[in-house]
Amino acid sequence: MRLSRFFLPVLKEAPAEAQIVSHQLMLRAGMIQQLSAGIYSWLPLGWRVLRKVEQIVREEQDRSGAIEILMPTIQPADLWRESGRYDDYGKEMLRIRDRHERDMLYGPTNEENVTDIFRRHVKSYKALPLNLYHIQWKFRDEVRPRFGVMRGREFLMKDAYSFDLDHEAAQRAYDRMFVAYLKTFKRMGLTAIPMQAETGPIGGNMSHEFQILASTGESAVYFDAAFEEIDFLADELDVGRLKALYAAADEKHDPATCPVPPERLRSGRGIEVGHIFYFGTKYSAPMGATVIGPDGKEVPVEMGSYGIGVSRLVGALIEANHDERGIIWPEPVAPFRVALINLRGDDPLCTAMADRLDAQLAAAGIETLYDDREERAGVKFATMDLIGLPWQVTVGPRGAKAGTVELKSRRTGEVCELTPEALVARLAG
Amino acid sequence: MRLSRFFLPVLKEAPAEAQIVSHQLMLRAGMIQQLSAGIYSWLPLGWRVLRKVEQIVREEQDRSGAIEILMPTIQPADLWRESGRYDDYGKEMLRIRDRHERDMLYGPTNEENVTDIFRRHVKSYKALPLNLYHIQWKFRDEVRPRFGVMRGREFLMKDAYSFDLDHEAAQRAYDRMFVAYLKTFKRMGLTAIPMQAETGPIGGNMSHEFQILASTGESAVYFDAAFEEIDFLADELDVGRLKALYAAADEKHDPATCPVPPERLRSGRGIEVGHIFYFGTKYSAPMGATVIGPDGKEVPVEMGSYGIGVSRLVGALIEANHDERGIIWPEPVAPFRVALINLRGDDPLCTAMADRLDAQLAAAGIETLYDDREERAGVKFATMDLIGLPWQVTVGPRGAKAGTVELKSRRTGEVCELTPEALVARLAG
Repeated sequence: MRLSRFFLPVLKEAPAEAQIVSHQLMLRAGMIQQLSAGIYSWLPLGWRVLRKVEQIVREEQDRSGAIEILMPTIQPADLWRESGRYDDYGKEMLRIRDRHERDMLYGPTNEENVTDIFRRHVKSYKALPLNLYHIQWKFRDEVRPRFGVMRGREFLMKDAYSFDLDHEAAQRAYDRMFVAYLKTFKRMGLTAIPMQAETGPIGGNMSHEFQILASTGESAVYFDAAFEEIDFLADELDVGRLKALYAAADEKHDPATCPVPPERLRSGRGIEVGHIFYFGTKYSAPMGATVIGPDGKEVPVEMGSYGIGVSRLVGALIEANHDERGIIWPEPVAPFRVALINLRGDDPLCTAMADRLDAQLAAAGIETLYDDREERAGVKFATMDLIGLPWQVTVGPRGAKAGTVELKSRRTGEVCELTPEALVARLAG
Repeated sequence: MRLSRFFLPVLKEAPAEAQIVSHQLMLRAGMIQQLSAGIYSWLPLGWRVLRKVEQIVREEQDRSGAIEILMPTIQPADLWRESGRYDDYGKEMLRIRDRHERDMLYGPTNEENVTDIFRRHVKSYKALPLNLYHIQWKFRDEVRPRFGVMRGREFLMKDAYSFDLDHEAAQRAYDRMFVAYLKTFKRMGLTAIPMQAETGPIGGNMSHEFQILASTGESAVYFDAAFEEIDFLADELDVGRLKALYAAADEKHDPATCPVPPERLRSGRGIEVGHIFYFGTKYSAPMGATVIGPDGKEVPVEMGSYGIGVSRLVGALIEANHDERGIIWPEPVAPFRVALINLRGDDPLCTAMADRLDAQLAAAGIETLYDDREERAGVKFATMDLIGLPWQVTVGPRGAKAGTVELKSRRTGEVCELTPEALVARLAG
């Protein structure tokens, strides 16, 4: 993609309302644009990252056996009256009245909706286990939306819902999702720490939240060093061991009773990016979502729900990956992998080489943002450092004569010189 | 995907409220589930089709040079007061008041939002031409929602917005989108007829709507036979010629004055799936979206907008592709390409062969729905005919002994027998 044909409205300075680094950098890098408090438009660069994060989440949900659906954003209030949550939910729920004066709402979550789908279609234990998920926009009318996409009002969430015959099967569904979450975050280059948590307005009797580590995180967390050592992308993970590993939030951590020896105890600051719940029959019982078991008896189905804050993750990724010059994207979620900089648009040799390299990278399927603008080199480097693409490739007059380009890692700063062909081979490999 | 692990709640009979064939078939095939009047959940089969339609739309927008963003669903009323449409829009607009008593709305379209993005960031003609699009859920509070996803309240739409310096450039942007639309629909196996249209609440002075042909279409259309002969997927299309070709709705068609000779005149029934508008400065002037031209003068930017009803297209595709037994998906939008039927789950030879074939098809990247349930053959065939996957592969006891399977085209009914290896090679080719 040529930058001259892209839409990348970078800002020299972050607007004053942006208090945290991810919000500042997302505005400066032209990733988002606020439309109203806590409501954002995703500009092209931000949209590309959001899509990549969403796709990794999707692939790991699919791999875990969950099946994708899409529930709508607007729901009828009557369904929430069945579960008893319509009156409980409070002012965070965006309540709407339609033209026929029916009470509707913008879904803050979808337990009722998915339970309704289940009860209409599933009657027998033979259809179980079943896990349905969707990736859809939600709305929570936060009283004080802030921190950009980290605490917005309209936000993108993946929410999965498991249905099982009994407690043991529900526990297995919970464990499958527990493992899927660790893999999901690891694929984005993030170490996630699962911690036992309160169940809040979702309800239930077992819950874990997943915190990723960032120096700018919201709260202190303490955890076993094993979390940094385990290969979460390995095929087989021992979920029992993982759940037993020590992890605690600041308010629960007590050095006097902590079972982890000091040399194995790690601490950091965490940002919550996922939350999973087992709540048994909290929704299925009042809503009449039952199945006939193998013994011929009708029982309410056992349920859990599993959320990942997809749009929040974009902010969290930046909190965990930036320096004073800008964002440093992990490769799997980078909006483009390569920044191609032509230092001298007025030098035909440079321009011919950069144009050719752009075509070669495209042919190799390597997503490239090619800065073909008539700008000073300093402006081009500053822009690319700000938007944080993993690899910067620079074409300059000296190299153009010698037939080489410069390759620099945005993360490590390491630089090497190589021919365009070697560069493409290396990035494609 | 094994059907025993999928979620495909097919219905024996269509609910009485479904009046048109696409609505009936979408319900019977377990593609959608109504949550409230005109608001649907997309179940796994429907979701897969919606995603494929969306992806084709996206690829052709990208190819035309438009850049993808994502604007939110909830918008502030103040922005619509700037354009003057807040009071004009009427009861189809879903009006919302948030917890701070601010007037908000669920976007029925996004001209105001995108014009706001433009005016905040673009100041010079040098950034033009620019075309920003998104694929996002919209809400129009229809007084009488009906026909399933064909006239729902919450619906998925692709809307693109072009920005140009002057009328001539805006005309070129319009023409690029005109051609992109013909290609988009053709890629889904649909012939689209572009017809000059009224501009309605969007406003402006030039507009075309795109109707696809289906015997169950909403209105009669008359058109030049050339529309059925031109290869819209060819690289170069003569947009001037295309726009000059005769096409007219019933109420405008007059045999006495029609310029097309009778032997070249075609007629059919059409379903509107796209609509494009050129409206100049209707939004940019009141909202102050201006650029400095090459002459140093500040002028309001020239705009157009371009919509495709993505969720509506799923219904329209079925209206154009079905028979008395069910849906017949065109390959590019089929939820799976292959239906694999094991006739005898109780025969180890059949099951081994079907399992192996399922693995071979997966390895070749061919999306397959494998009916591994313990059901009668008749039920399996009826289900696959209903959901309309392009290719049905049947494993039966006779063939299993001979080392062959049966391949049948859902559309033509043509049948052939071949080895599993030949089958995979043929479908992969």
